[in-house]
Amino acid sequence: MAERGVEILCVGTELLLGSILNGNARWIAEQLAGLGLPHYRQTVVGDNVERLTAAAREAAERSSVLITTGGLGPTPDDLTTATLASAFGAALEERPELWREIQEKLSTGGRPVAASNRSQACLPRGAEVLPNPLGSAPGMIWSPRPGFTVLTFPGVPSEMRAMWSATAEPWLRRHGGAEGVFVSRQLRFSGIGESNLAEQVADLLNGSNPTVAPYASLGDVKLRLTACGSDHAEAEALLEPVERELLLRCGQHCYGRDEESLASVLLRQLRERGETLAVAESCTGGGVGAAITAVPGCSDVFLGGVIAYSNAMKQRLLGVSPDLIQSHGAVSDPVVTAMAEGARDRLGSDWALAISGIAGPGGGGPDKPVGLVHLAVAGPDGCQAWAERFGDRRGRLAVQQLSVIRVLDGLRRRLLSRG
Amino acid sequence: MAERGVEILCVGTELLLGSILNGNARWIAEQLAGLGLPHYRQTVVGDNVERLTAAAREAAERSSVLITTGGLGPTPDDLTTATLASAFGAALEERPELWREIQEKLSTGGRPVAASNRSQACLPRGAEVLPNPLGSAPGMIWSPRPGFTVLTFPGVPSEMRAMWSATAEPWLRRHGGAEGVFVSRQLRFSGIGESNLAEQVADLLNGSNPTVAPYASLGDVKLRLTACGSDHAEAEALLEPVERELLLRCGQHCYGRDEESLASVLLRQLRERGETLAVAESCTGGGVGAAITAVPGCSDVFLGGVIAYSNAMKQRLLGVSPDLIQSHGAVSDPVVTAMAEGARDRLGSDWALAISGIAGPGGGGPDKPVGLVHLAVAGPDGCQAWAERFGDRRGRLAVQQLSVIRVLDGLRRRLLSRG
Repeated sequence: MAERGVEILCVGTELLLGSILNGNARWIAEQLAGLGLPHYRQTVVGDNVERLTAAAREAAERSSVLITTGGLGPTPDDLTTATLASAFGAALEERPELWREIQEKLSTGGRPVAASNRSQACLPRGAEVLPNPLGSAPGMIWSPRPGFTVLTFPGVPSEMRAMWSATAEPWLRRHGGAEGVFVSRQLRFSGIGESNLAEQVADLLNGSNPTVAPYASLGDVKLRLTACGSDHAEAEALLEPVERELLLRCGQHCYGRDEESLASVLLRQLRERGETLAVAESCTGGGVGAAITAVPGCSDVFLGGVIAYSNAMKQRLLGVSPDLIQSHGAVSDPVVTAMAEGARDRLGSDWALAISGIAGPGGGGPDKPVGLVHLAVAGPDGCQAWAERFGDRRGRLAVQQLSVIRVLDGLRRRLLSRG
Repeated sequence: MAERGVEILCVGTELLLGSILNGNARWIAEQLAGLGLPHYRQTVVGDNVERLTAAAREAAERSSVLITTGGLGPTPDDLTTATLASAFGAALEERPELWREIQEKLSTGGRPVAASNRSQACLPRGAEVLPNPLGSAPGMIWSPRPGFTVLTFPGVPSEMRAMWSATAEPWLRRHGGAEGVFVSRQLRFSGIGESNLAEQVADLLNGSNPTVAPYASLGDVKLRLTACGSDHAEAEALLEPVERELLLRCGQHCYGRDEESLASVLLRQLRERGETLAVAESCTGGGVGAAITAVPGCSDVFLGGVIAYSNAMKQRLLGVSPDLIQSHGAVSDPVVTAMAEGARDRLGSDWALAISGIAGPGGGGPDKPVGLVHLAVAGPDGCQAWAERFGDRRGRLAVQQLSVIRVLDGLRRRLLSRG
């Protein structure tokens, strides 16, 4: 059973129109990973009898468990239960106790009982009810063929999750066929590209237990380690030496684990030192402050900052001298240094970060092209300023986001090197 | 070709582990709907040769176009291109011009060129390059069988979208098999819920040409109108009366069209009046400023602002009196009013926006629960302050984002009502 795995089939034309994100598939996938169940495929089809029939039959050939979401409501485009019944040649039968329960739920909720609700009381012969503690639409647990079971859920996320926890998860623990316990960990890297990182740890990417897989997003690379053991401790013990080896090779670029962010790690470093932080932002317009305040409980470290978008504001709010802007330009090491020192001074913080750059698409020139950003980190032992060139291809938002990441990482690394 | 439709195949073990939401499938599905292309199925498989091979071959039996995302990077688990080549029996060949381009891009970006990047220059014989203007991973447009074409994209959303707009969308318009010319328009709404909006325009949601479909995201609802005509003018003429009717019914909530944002619309309003803007942010920590500076060319309107996260900074940087904070609390109408007036005064702007709230998860109390946010809009004719209650269920980031949206919308509506 374990070899054949669990599939997810989401039913809903709104998914095919791109109206909503498929949050159900993600949530169920995460639950399956936590249960250690093999999950190899997800499918989305619309509210369509033929295509749903085909998808369900294909899944029965491949997998031992099929989890469906959507199409359990009372309206004519809710056709999951009836379609599955006919796909596997079973008759639908009304369950009187289910029909009573649906009527009770609707009346308790003050909603009218429509004739169409009666269709929700019909399940294929032989199917068990998968109770819905929150809504009127019940699901089912049904094995239409030997070694193949379908679990159906409504598309409403809160109902699906409640049904999962109450009934489906215990069922899957007993019948899902997990062999062992899976434990997963993410290492997060900054300041190193995905291919460069992968090359340094190439041999470890070929392992099978634990597996190590890289994931890249803007300015950020993750390595996900997943180990399988007979129990949690064994899986952890398999992870440990591989994680240690990864950190030995690339530890200076690894800023955190799992759900940590650059900002949350930096805040922790500063909190441990009892030091405070302020920001002075030009082209990022508040993005550094927003990244920091995205972290709950940042107020003991983060005092605030100044968004000095215009040159006049760099002078007025941060005390940057007009001569400095005149002679070096607003996008320069001397000006970001003055911005950072000005923020430290005016806010009275231990540390300050400053950014001034040309985010584009306009405003670039031959000397100072779009994508050029100057960054500064000012602290008790002086100010460091440097330039980054992000180029003009990735767009304004990417230049802004990369600037935020680099300046946060700049202070993180400086604190590390100070010990 | 139109009957066989377009499929989406997302490749990535991180999707099967539930590590990330499949935002790419949603975005592509929305684009296909806008192009009028039939789209009946989405599939997700992991970074696995056998299962990717099977999924691609099945798609070739069903569909005329297969769009893949993911697996184009340089690491060993990036195996989309090579697997598709072998699935359809084609040899991989290195494209020298592609290899040169990849090397150039990496060096321009200051990144080292790894040997593994060379695999990204290999495409199946006969495939066209689908250029990647942002990253090193190119895609391809390849017809391995008559009447079946594969378009490959990387999983990084910004790169995928840029490649789509530049190359794939024009290709699909020519070859996708849409019958007639589709014209699509989005109306963007703020300050009205999806179900409420849908109820007010319910009859129009049932139309078939144009179709009208609602899309909801955090704090924002869109209606997408799509009409099909024999030419562009005919499609436009079909859209026009429906759009007029929608605006008649819900126009006061409609802030913009297509790719406009609340910030871009607000900046245009202020630019037309020759007026300037500043911000004073507490719990959003710079999010309002970041939303405004995400819009290119905002510098003629936006001067900057103050991030006053701590109470001391509200006093020091904005001149809010300690007594006011003492007697009303930092999250109150009097304090956000003083913050907004302080920002107007200190930055010398015509208008200022201010926010102070409890983003959570901690810091709430019986009188001032998590999710309570006070907002203010100060201008030449006085200051308006009000409270929003976003609740404690949606999480810190949602409270911050909704606060940004509401305060921008507050000034937008105020300017509209002033005429």
